[in-house]
Amino acid sequence: MSKTYTIAVIPGDGIGKEVTPWARKALEKAAQGVADFTYEPFDLGAERYLRDGAILPDDELERIKKTDAILLGAVGDPRIKAGILERGLLLKLRFALDQYVNLRPSKLYKGVTSPLANPGDIDFVVVREGTEGLYCGAGGAVRRGTPQEVATEVSINTAYGVERVVRYAFDLAMKRRKHVTLVHKKNVLVNAGDMWQRIVDRVGEEYPEVTHDYSHIDAATIYLVSDPSRFDVILTDNLFGDILTDEAGAVVGGVGYSASGCINASNEYPSMFEPIHGSAPDIAGKGIANPTAAILSAAMLLEHLGFDDAAKRIHAAVEADIAELGSTARTTEQVGEDILARI
Amino acid sequence: MSKTYTIAVIPGDGIGKEVTPWARKALEKAAQGVADFTYEPFDLGAERYLRDGAILPDDELERIKKTDAILLGAVGDPRIKAGILERGLLLKLRFALDQYVNLRPSKLYKGVTSPLANPGDIDFVVVREGTEGLYCGAGGAVRRGTPQEVATEVSINTAYGVERVVRYAFDLAMKRRKHVTLVHKKNVLVNAGDMWQRIVDRVGEEYPEVTHDYSHIDAATIYLVSDPSRFDVILTDNLFGDILTDEAGAVVGGVGYSASGCINASNEYPSMFEPIHGSAPDIAGKGIANPTAAILSAAMLLEHLGFDDAAKRIHAAVEADIAELGSTARTTEQVGEDILARI
Ligand SMILES: CC(C)[C@H](C(=O)O)[C@@H](O)C(=O)O
Ligand SMILES: CC(C)[C@H](C(=O)O)[C@@H](O)C(=O)O
Repeated sequence: MSKTYTIAVIPGDGIGKEVTPWARKALEKAAQGVADFTYEPFDLGAERYLRDGAILPDDELERIKKTDAILLGAVGDPRIKAGILERGLLLKLRFALDQYVNLRPSKLYKGVTSPLANPGDIDFVVVREGTEGLYCGAGGAVRRGTPQEVATEVSINTAYGVERVVRYAFDLAMKRRKHVTLVHKKNVLVNAGDMWQRIVDRVGEEYPEVTHDYSHIDAATIYLVSDPSRFDVILTDNLFGDILTDEAGAVVGGVGYSASGCINASNEYPSMFEPIHGSAPDIAGKGIANPTAAILSAAMLLEHLGFDDAAKRIHAAVEADIAELGSTARTTEQVGEDILARI
Repeated sequence: MSKTYTIAVIPGDGIGKEVTPWARKALEKAAQGVADFTYEPFDLGAERYLRDGAILPDDELERIKKTDAILLGAVGDPRIKAGILERGLLLKLRFALDQYVNLRPSKLYKGVTSPLANPGDIDFVVVREGTEGLYCGAGGAVRRGTPQEVATEVSINTAYGVERVVRYAFDLAMKRRKHVTLVHKKNVLVNAGDMWQRIVDRVGEEYPEVTHDYSHIDAATIYLVSDPSRFDVILTDNLFGDILTDEAGAVVGGVGYSASGCINASNEYPSMFEPIHGSAPDIAGKGIANPTAAILSAAMLLEHLGFDDAAKRIHAAVEADIAELGSTARTTEQVGEDILARI
């Protein structure tokens, strides 16, 4: 008797709605005979907000909490003031579900053209803290709209929050090439940076096989362009992780190939899997968005639930598809069908 | 009777000490017959700190305030805890001298190999705010070293501080291709981001010939790799500017070609000119650091003082040198002499 897993599906906005169905189909096909899934769709995002003003009602959040995992598309719509959906829906989910590990692998697939002249072998994972830092929503403004306006943003960092994500990064490094690079800006953000460094040094002692080094965020953006092969596991805070993973997406040939997991590694709440690209209003509705990143996020979901073989089937299908057809212009549906056929 | 300008020279640490003499020689030669310079050297940086504990004594800061401009090399030394020299010397100068415009041009010179496969024409300027944001030094820590430690960093942004740098960016755009891109993260940092956007929109109305758009910092790091030609003037805050200009340096073939000015545009205090590269402890002392960025910072200094023709002589010499010898391995001295010979 295999357990039935309930997956919350939140396609969200723009191309999120176009790529998420393919993530679901890939999940279904890869897990055939291995696990049963039921899907609970959630109508959340711009359309819903414009229709009835709801962003993430409490009862829907409670229902999401009861699922086993979440497939998310993308959040953001140009008709709505920046921040409302991002903070009210996407970040609210990450925070309410305590998804403290934002896991973002970057890999240059065979068949993908990197914008770099000599990309080398690129295969690293960014472990981005997901529940602290400048993303807390702390800060405010006084005398808004006057010449005396002052606006603040506060980055809150706790030893508790940092240590758990640091441990995750070292555990992950043990399964990989055993190297962790802490990225921060400790020469300027001395309070938070110093705490991160101390915790990395202390936890690192428990992992004698794992080497670790440090890079300022500004230098790290250089290395991603000049020498991306140097990285194995990049460990960083919420904002720096946001920045680095988009740049990394560009370096591996476009965010269309980059998936991510927002992981509650203590398994109290469901984890969430999403492509790292956004809602891409400029190409939304045209049926040309690449569903590969969404499909790869389904593979991350399967891995998270322990179905490694099913996840591998998706990875193998994606790799074969890109190697053969990666440079061909295809519609969303074509890419989706092509990958599905190989699973 | 031409006025004599006093230039404070702060070589600082590591390769800063190796490249700054060439900036000074280039300045001298380019300005021959146009202006007289005297140089006031300041022994500030790691050696001084290790010797007598001084970082930037008040009386030296007062003497620096009386100069007409500052040539700085680089600050930072691995023997000293991160943040001490950076905050105590470099950032203290930027803040005490109210250098609110951190001006960082990025240009792909003919003869330089970009790490990008198809770099296109790259020629933009980052206007980075220099006296606010996360660089204020606001923030702290409680229960340091315990499992209950909390560390904060506070970004302080004022309408006063933002508006003056926004105006500078629009004025600069008028002399260039008339386009400003605001870079921020207004979907997360809603207080500061919203203020920046409102001020850009309002000031932008006074410049009907200048178009402006907006990019999130994460997306901007993608564009720098995938389509850097799109940018003319990038306008951003202190931290995002730090990150973007290092990535931009990589994209134009290395920070060895990137100079910067820390400008007090109201001319109450001297402005400071420095290469954007750091002290590079890994290559310091070997005589192989490229002095080009330092020499270009001397050109920025000349422009700032109104000696446009002298500045152009340096630019022309550097461009000719790179076009002919840019890909040849040379020592610091060789590059310095080669450029000097062309001025
Ligand atoms: C949409 C935005 C709030 C989000 C973030 O900044 O985390 C996105 O850029 C991401 O990286 O998932
Ligand atoms: C050394 C450091 C404090 C400095 C900064 O962050 O501004 C440097 O990276 C720069 O860009 O000039």
